[in-house]
Amino acid sequence: MGEFMTETQQSPLSAVEGPRPDQGPAPVGRHGPPDGQEAAVILERARASVDPELRRAVESLPASTRRIALYHFGWQHADGTPAAGNPGKAIRPALVLAAAGALGGHRTTAVRAAAAVELVHNFTLLHDDVMDRDATRRHRPTAWAVFGDADAVLAGDSLQALAHRLLADDPHPASSAAAARLASCVVELCAGQHADTVMERRGPDDITLDEVLAMAEAKTGALLGCACALGALYAGADEAEVEALDAFGREAGLAFQFIDDVIGIWGDPTRTGKPAGADLMARKKSLPVVAALTADTQAAAELTELYRLPYRDGDLERTILAVERAGGRDWAQTQAADRMARALDHLSCAVPDPEAAGGLLSLAEYVTRRSE
Amino acid sequence: MGEFMTETQQSPLSAVEGPRPDQGPAPVGRHGPPDGQEAAVILERARASVDPELRRAVESLPASTRRIALYHFGWQHADGTPAAGNPGKAIRPALVLAAAGALGGHRTTAVRAAAAVELVHNFTLLHDDVMDRDATRRHRPTAWAVFGDADAVLAGDSLQALAHRLLADDPHPASSAAAARLASCVVELCAGQHADTVMERRGPDDITLDEVLAMAEAKTGALLGCACALGALYAGADEAEVEALDAFGREAGLAFQFIDDVIGIWGDPTRTGKPAGADLMARKKSLPVVAALTADTQAAAELTELYRLPYRDGDLERTILAVERAGGRDWAQTQAADRMARALDHLSCAVPDPEAAGGLLSLAEYVTRRSE
Repeated sequence: MGEFMTETQQSPLSAVEGPRPDQGPAPVGRHGPPDGQEAAVILERARASVDPELRRAVESLPASTRRIALYHFGWQHADGTPAAGNPGKAIRPALVLAAAGALGGHRTTAVRAAAAVELVHNFTLLHDDVMDRDATRRHRPTAWAVFGDADAVLAGDSLQALAHRLLADDPHPASSAAAARLASCVVELCAGQHADTVMERRGPDDITLDEVLAMAEAKTGALLGCACALGALYAGADEAEVEALDAFGREAGLAFQFIDDVIGIWGDPTRTGKPAGADLMARKKSLPVVAALTADTQAAAELTELYRLPYRDGDLERTILAVERAGGRDWAQTQAADRMARALDHLSCAVPDPEAAGGLLSLAEYVTRRSE
Repeated sequence: MGEFMTETQQSPLSAVEGPRPDQGPAPVGRHGPPDGQEAAVILERARASVDPELRRAVESLPASTRRIALYHFGWQHADGTPAAGNPGKAIRPALVLAAAGALGGHRTTAVRAAAAVELVHNFTLLHDDVMDRDATRRHRPTAWAVFGDADAVLAGDSLQALAHRLLADDPHPASSAAAARLASCVVELCAGQHADTVMERRGPDDITLDEVLAMAEAKTGALLGCACALGALYAGADEAEVEALDAFGREAGLAFQFIDDVIGIWGDPTRTGKPAGADLMARKKSLPVVAALTADTQAAAELTELYRLPYRDGDLERTILAVERAGGRDWAQTQAADRMARALDHLSCAVPDPEAAGGLLSLAEYVTRRSE
């Protein structure tokens, strides 16, 4: 999935030049408009809470793998000199801490769990970048591009181990249950990445909508759900609450993925910071594209023909139009709204008090408003 | 490190055509000669105890990554049809169970820990084979050679996660301490593999003996030490006993590596199953080779010149002779004996009763008697 990064925030309304998708039922009892300011504060606080724990874990690595991890987190340049650090927007740690708070726990008790989730996220980024041959991450060359594949894989392996060590060392009574849940999440993330690599190799008429939805849930939804579930566990929540928080995070994660994919095609490149239609040119099988490919229309057939061949100059407008005409854009926007509504349902089950749920609501709104 | 595999057992005396290295002080109070029969029984029992737990963990994976793991463990052919299974000799699980028994624990309580160690071992094999481009493992094509790099990396990632989940789910009071220790061991294994990949790229006059010793300890000693330490933890041992067992396993692991490297050069190819001098032809920087390269003799200089260039037909005899003349063989054999003596010292500190220590002694002898 994309990173929740440093790009300028924009609402789907401005990013997507079309009718604003129905965002589902408006969260009840919110104070003031959901303008992202509250989320920004929550994210900043989460980053400030988690960074020392994260940094301590990474500093504990032996020199050889530490160097790669410090580079990946933006704390060092490739030559080993200190850098300002740009480890992303801390959305997952923020979800852990907000979930703990929403269920009556104290956020500080869940800081190690939040750091563990962030370590797992970064382990998957290191490995996924190797497999996907992505050369840029957080506006810098990826770790494999600087240090080579082996070093990036070993740094990722080490971060996974550090995540589990943080929880194993945590005396909190929920730490074992959290560790088991995080380990299961890693298994799911790997299956999601596997599905992604397999689908990349397949032809455009050889992918089902169910497959791409399952992939998006495993790759994107699983860790956001796990983050919320871990926060609930650390607050001493019961099983039903933990599962509801997991479902909330999963659905919010899927809503994010739909919006992210829509913005990737119809977003304003001057605001997203990515060249217009880069994903289409790379023939990526994003959610709106697969929805369009699997529609039984003339536009779907045209899109399939276009996707059979590598991108050629001048194809972009036709490709965008085919996805739109085959219904890919409308479907993705409807799905995003639907997933967001489901997320809010799950949240209100576990946390009926809108005041208590406020932080999680802000974060869910944030991830579906962001641009890439 | 090499696998403790299905090759015919042979003593260093028969494998290494030279004076038998001094094996250090003979273990006291042993019943009958250390002929490997006792170890074979212990290994077989460990395999039988751990396999159901291991198989259950692997079967819990999603279909996509499960297929790769089942192939790696030899439980499936590449096409997904069932296979007899050949997951190696179970030396690490056997060490966990034997250590638990030696310190008064019941071996059955440590079965999950033993399976976790075996999962970590197999995760590193999957990843190391990708990095080292090793095409064969346990007499079959490696997972990356069959399924590709991405699949092998993802299967390895999943096995690491399964290892941590086994311990997180284990209600035994030592499971958290064991999980923290296993996670730290993974960090060390990664650093060892990193050192290995770095040294492979360096020239023959750019490697120190300290480096190659540290690499061997991290890559080979760490997990054998961790296996013994986990067994001790599960037996409720105190910190000093746990550390002594870790040191025992580490030193035995290093002794193994010295013998393994000696056999790799001077072993009988008809018994080792590997072509004579394959490691030398590949210009591998094994322990005897680095000892020879860093000796300040004429033979060392000749070896350095030979190692600067890729192998050419006819070089093998000269290379073997240069390693031997520069003292690489004698040094490695002395080191193996020395490490074994240290291992036994550590063991007798923690387990003074030779009867109780018998299983661990048999396993230590086994790993330093094996052939590759």
